[in-house]
Amino acid sequence: MNNFELYNPVNYIFGKDQIQKLSELIPANAKVLLAYGVGSIFKNGVHNQVTNALNKHQVIEFGGIEPNPHFETLMKAVQIIREQKIDFILAVGGGSVIDGVKFISAAVHFEGDEADILRKRILFKEGANVVPFGTVLTLPATGSEMNSGAVVTIAATQEKLTLGGSALFPKFSIVDPTVITSLPKRQLQNGVVDAFTHVMEQYLTYPHDAMLQDRFAESILKTLIEIGPSVVENPSDYKLASNFVWCATMALNGLIQKGVPSDWATHMIGHELTALYNIDHARTLAIIGPNLYKVMFETKKEKLAQYGHRVWNLSGNVEDVANDAIDKTINFFNIMGMKTRISENAENIEKTADFIVNRFEERGWKAMGEKQNITLEKVREIVEMSY
Amino acid sequence: MNNFELYNPVNYIFGKDQIQKLSELIPANAKVLLAYGVGSIFKNGVHNQVTNALNKHQVIEFGGIEPNPHFETLMKAVQIIREQKIDFILAVGGGSVIDGVKFISAAVHFEGDEADILRKRILFKEGANVVPFGTVLTLPATGSEMNSGAVVTIAATQEKLTLGGSALFPKFSIVDPTVITSLPKRQLQNGVVDAFTHVMEQYLTYPHDAMLQDRFAESILKTLIEIGPSVVENPSDYKLASNFVWCATMALNGLIQKGVPSDWATHMIGHELTALYNIDHARTLAIIGPNLYKVMFETKKEKLAQYGHRVWNLSGNVEDVANDAIDKTINFFNIMGMKTRISENAENIEKTADFIVNRFEERGWKAMGEKQNITLEKVREIVEMSY
Repeated sequence: MNNFELYNPVNYIFGKDQIQKLSELIPANAKVLLAYGVGSIFKNGVHNQVTNALNKHQVIEFGGIEPNPHFETLMKAVQIIREQKIDFILAVGGGSVIDGVKFISAAVHFEGDEADILRKRILFKEGANVVPFGTVLTLPATGSEMNSGAVVTIAATQEKLTLGGSALFPKFSIVDPTVITSLPKRQLQNGVVDAFTHVMEQYLTYPHDAMLQDRFAESILKTLIEIGPSVVENPSDYKLASNFVWCATMALNGLIQKGVPSDWATHMIGHELTALYNIDHARTLAIIGPNLYKVMFETKKEKLAQYGHRVWNLSGNVEDVANDAIDKTINFFNIMGMKTRISENAENIEKTADFIVNRFEERGWKAMGEKQNITLEKVREIVEMSY
Repeated sequence: MNNFELYNPVNYIFGKDQIQKLSELIPANAKVLLAYGVGSIFKNGVHNQVTNALNKHQVIEFGGIEPNPHFETLMKAVQIIREQKIDFILAVGGGSVIDGVKFISAAVHFEGDEADILRKRILFKEGANVVPFGTVLTLPATGSEMNSGAVVTIAATQEKLTLGGSALFPKFSIVDPTVITSLPKRQLQNGVVDAFTHVMEQYLTYPHDAMLQDRFAESILKTLIEIGPSVVENPSDYKLASNFVWCATMALNGLIQKGVPSDWATHMIGHELTALYNIDHARTLAIIGPNLYKVMFETKKEKLAQYGHRVWNLSGNVEDVANDAIDKTINFFNIMGMKTRISENAENIEKTADFIVNRFEERGWKAMGEKQNITLEKVREIVEMSY
């Protein structure tokens, strides 16, 4: 097992009727920026619950954080916080809003060009001068409510980039599984596939010594396979909803990544598909993941076979089980409503591979994946196989 | 799934050659109490590593914290800290030393009779005035390095009692799996069985909706069954050692308990066997656990069957699988060197049930377990079945 540090100080509050705790969780004298997205919190009643809980706080609202949040939008919030001397940010939304708030938190006191936070991957370590924030999760998928990473897009240049560091953990996250009741089916499908692929990125690599982490990863995959198809049909079933939401957090709160190799190339390629064609994040993962496993089959076949055995109960020789496991995965994504080809999700796609490979070359990226053997040639192959 | 709060701010540092990080982890100007047990840290080289790492700190040593740490011993450390105005405590040892340091941390600024911390179960919440502490783990078993609970014995009255609260999380814990190389086989056996039973207390209850927690619990059990017999023979095998140590932490760092019922009656009864006969903690669990499952069979049979199916790969009807699962558990404990009868571990035991039931009555305890249906009559039955 690789050496690791596990540090996750988020106060994670899970269950029904928890939003009212906001009044105690945010310091009484704090001036609060209430940040949210494109308005769903007005439809599902969460805006009401939040403002009721904060009726003794001074609250300034900032709405309109878009999916795949834009640097340009977030900088408006940064200006408001600087001007109005705000002490605390409350993110109410899904991964995009929470990721956006992480950037805002980091940028307020940053000295220099705030775009450098993203382009130069500035790390915000414990003790960095950031604005404290909490979250109320309304769309489970990304795990952002219990980790310290974020993805932000610079719209002007279509760059989707990351930031993070231990200073960027939420102080608390309130996670009420009943919020998914009002979500569109498409977002629920996306959430299941996103969480599933997060686990795969940290699991589907090569055999190693971290036996318990493998089993934890398999536990999340099995649970998502078991509940995924039914939770999107019956999101008001609390058993299904609570397990889905908890799986989505555990998939990316850092635990299963400790001591093991991880891949993340599916995300790196997928992010480009979102930047190019605005395909939903989860749907890009469903397109790229299985084709990446096929192209990198020789590297990944042992782990694919373990996954096939333990998660899909397949038996047979390594190659067969590994291949069947990929087919099972595609089939699961189809059941979850994913269309697993780029051409089913966008038009005029014939230059996609050129564009992505050029973009990676411009950034100086030569290879990716757990063995750094997904070269740009392999990236081209994966993308072309995905057309 | 039950509502829950998950908050665990321990900076958990796992792997080889990590002890040197102490110099950065403890504030440079802190006056440090270095607390340890009955001397094993001099034999295994850890004392040297720790004092080398702290060569720029002012360090006062306090040794002699015994297994099942005594209130009376710990109060001596409390006096030293008060007199010498110590700022930070470093616990170097296993669960007993770490548990002892949690009590010391809580007692230093406690106003009133310090025994009341234990007898009145005072809760030390975030913000309570405690002395900060970190740990270097030398004996994996209890998970104390990553939780906020502790067990302390008042020797004068033979009371084994608990304390805890979110203020009593270690600031950091350094967990180097290579430290188990020098442990006696008996302690390694105890560690595996202790961790295993910690999981069982939080898992072996009744069927519920928390699917992922069940699978996480089963993941730890399967890993301990797989590595337990070999790690006690080959503790210098890093694959075995690292998985064992990580399982022991995950078994009792709070995660698998979130959202689920838990039992803990095996521990409550087992503690009395240690108080009465000084039987090793883990060995009391191996004695009591299986007999508790037998006596409470009607309550626990569905979960015993799930455990039998998933952990032991048994098949058949619920009753048969449940019974076989208990036999498998006893057999595993025997393989791990446990003698699973009280009479194999102590002498003159015929009054044990009377003594334990009387002790529980004195404390006003009427029933225990996940359904509060382990009455004192059931306790008597479990203990007598264990003779």
